[in-house]
Amino acid sequence: MKVIIFQENLSKKVSFLSRALPTKTPAISSLNNFLFSAKENEIRIFASNLDTTIVSTATGKVFQEGEVLINAKTLISFLSSLAGEKIVIEGDEKKVKIEGGKTKIVLKTENPNDFPVPEEKDLEGGKTTPKGLFEEAMKKVCFAASTDEARGALTGVFFEPEEKGLNVVATDGFRLSLLQKKEKSPAFSSSLIIPAKTVFDICSIAQEEGVEDINIKIIGGGKQIVFSTKETKLYSRLVEGDFPNYKKIIPENKGIKITFNRDELLRAVKIASIFAKDGANIVKLQTGESGLFLYASSPQTGENQTQLEAKIEGEKDLNIAFNFRFLLDFLNSSEEEEVLLQTTGPLSPGVFRSVKKERKAHTSIIAQSGPLPKAGREEDQERAIKQ
Amino acid sequence: MKVIIFQENLSKKVSFLSRALPTKTPAISSLNNFLFSAKENEIRIFASNLDTTIVSTATGKVFQEGEVLINAKTLISFLSSLAGEKIVIEGDEKKVKIEGGKTKIVLKTENPNDFPVPEEKDLEGGKTTPKGLFEEAMKKVCFAASTDEARGALTGVFFEPEEKGLNVVATDGFRLSLLQKKEKSPAFSSSLIIPAKTVFDICSIAQEEGVEDINIKIIGGGKQIVFSTKETKLYSRLVEGDFPNYKKIIPENKGIKITFNRDELLRAVKIASIFAKDGANIVKLQTGESGLFLYASSPQTGENQTQLEAKIEGEKDLNIAFNFRFLLDFLNSSEEEEVLLQTTGPLSPGVFRSVKKERKAHTSIIAQSGPLPKAGREEDQERAIKQ
Repeated sequence: MKVIIFQENLSKKVSFLSRALPTKTPAISSLNNFLFSAKENEIRIFASNLDTTIVSTATGKVFQEGEVLINAKTLISFLSSLAGEKIVIEGDEKKVKIEGGKTKIVLKTENPNDFPVPEEKDLEGGKTTPKGLFEEAMKKVCFAASTDEARGALTGVFFEPEEKGLNVVATDGFRLSLLQKKEKSPAFSSSLIIPAKTVFDICSIAQEEGVEDINIKIIGGGKQIVFSTKETKLYSRLVEGDFPNYKKIIPENKGIKITFNRDELLRAVKIASIFAKDGANIVKLQTGESGLFLYASSPQTGENQTQLEAKIEGEKDLNIAFNFRFLLDFLNSSEEEEVLLQTTGPLSPGVFRSVKKERKAHTSIIAQSGPLPKAGREEDQERAIKQ
Repeated sequence: MKVIIFQENLSKKVSFLSRALPTKTPAISSLNNFLFSAKENEIRIFASNLDTTIVSTATGKVFQEGEVLINAKTLISFLSSLAGEKIVIEGDEKKVKIEGGKTKIVLKTENPNDFPVPEEKDLEGGKTTPKGLFEEAMKKVCFAASTDEARGALTGVFFEPEEKGLNVVATDGFRLSLLQKKEKSPAFSSSLIIPAKTVFDICSIAQEEGVEDINIKIIGGGKQIVFSTKETKLYSRLVEGDFPNYKKIIPENKGIKITFNRDELLRAVKIASIFAKDGANIVKLQTGESGLFLYASSPQTGENQTQLEAKIEGEKDLNIAFNFRFLLDFLNSSEEEEVLLQTTGPLSPGVFRSVKKERKAHTSIIAQSGPLPKAGREEDQERAIKQ
């Protein structure tokens, strides 16, 4: 194989392709590499960790068709030290030579046939979705997904079509975030669970390429999803298993209503976290003589309280508690000036929303202690949580 | 004690005071704290790791004289989450209350008498030095000092008065950096070794306070140095032991002369380092058919060579080797467009300088393999290196 690629184009590709590199030592050593494939004047670059594969077309010129593997870490370091050069890549299954300006590297390599390239069939006829849906899911929903790979469905973001729209939801069993879109999305004609990491990956690709629309196709008998832009394809496994019946977890609107200034609450939670993180991560909302306070304490260092300018409706004698990390996640994900907390008391979850009716599309539910209450189909949720 | 301090002033003080905090768990637990001392309407804050103590005067108002210890980590976190408030600090040896805006923290504390405050005597009559001397030492000399605390004199920067100026020099036994100032400095009437970290500390204080001049006084029978600005004092131990006879290490000017563009060489060394760091950190300068090349290889990944636009005088058949980290340190410390390397051959050290005669004040000497050659007083240097 021999190709020429501009460094700028290659660096851009490599920045999102590297999202698909294995984070641990992979079982197949070829996955430590980018696969470069040159055929019919098209240069394609692959990266994969088996769960996710990204393939992107680079702008360049093919002098000799073929395939080579290039060590990903070495290529990334090399590109970061070059200044706008043409890159010549030439190699076979033994070694690959990369020249840029006055510098040249020669790398040992492996047989490119060892790289697991995804089957490229059934890719036609997907449905188009604006990238904004994934960006909103990334910002407002993904934080609530579990990062523990052992937790199955809870590591994913659930896309569920509704009669008049689409629900996007994630939960780790302790808090839940729900986005209710009023537009139906033809790409999501049936429910599916996309790994939270994949949502970040596709946003990164769309942003780097400056595209607005993403084409989606389910393949592999419903086990895989392919996101396509003009130059790039992202193959991801779908999460198997049943997603908890989240609608049963969302409490009815009743009980106490507290309206906060989001910035003020965010700053108070950050200060309280200095003490809360020494213990069980708990911060408390308590009513005192002169109003509402956020309170945290540490057996080792001391305690903190901050008075909040909040409007309280319903019960006046409050004492409720949350994990400060969950509060920070929600408060950072919101763009509202004011947020509303509703809860029925010290044991029930808190429901966080925008105060503005037309923006109630984003709801975050945070348990006060322990896990969220069981959903309707208890066995399903138990299974999902234990997975 | 009860005082009011503006958050902005306190945050600024804390940013350089924290440089004197212990990096490991200290033998005396009080050193985990800042000591606040209020007396005669002056508020002073102390931080210490025993080797270094910084004390700085804060702008504020004293309501009640006294002293309190405040956990340094907690105070730093607390201040970073506040937005321009007045801070009220009130406490005794049991607990301390800190209020800012609508938030309040109450901290457990210790007896302020347990904090080792430096003796404040013999501080009058120091000599003034422009901060620029220390900034130049920080940028051009400190990198060559050893970071291994066990290496005694080699962890320091040697300030040696000359008949017509001042030499500032550091070496870790493998490379050496020398700054030759043509002005004499009254503060350095005899030689002394200042810990490299202290040079960074005093630069940080001068920069944060925006002062130009620093007053210097040697105290404690020549074992301690005190740097004073208008608001702050930095007490540091001096490094004991003999500094190697560095003048004997600097080779005579003869042999091969190579002139490099500094940016070009820097970029080439960065690329070569991708391969050199897998092995012995070695990069080589070699003459090939078409000129001079920088070369590095790794048994695992491959090799790199970069052609350099260098001017070579003397020997034409070159093959010399350096640790790439030492080259990066020197090249990053220089501001010259062109740098000159002189060496007598593959076993002798390389001498790096500016090509411009009037700027030859900054010299860096890098061994090609193993340690630098012994200085004249061999026993002294052996001792210094073994310390």
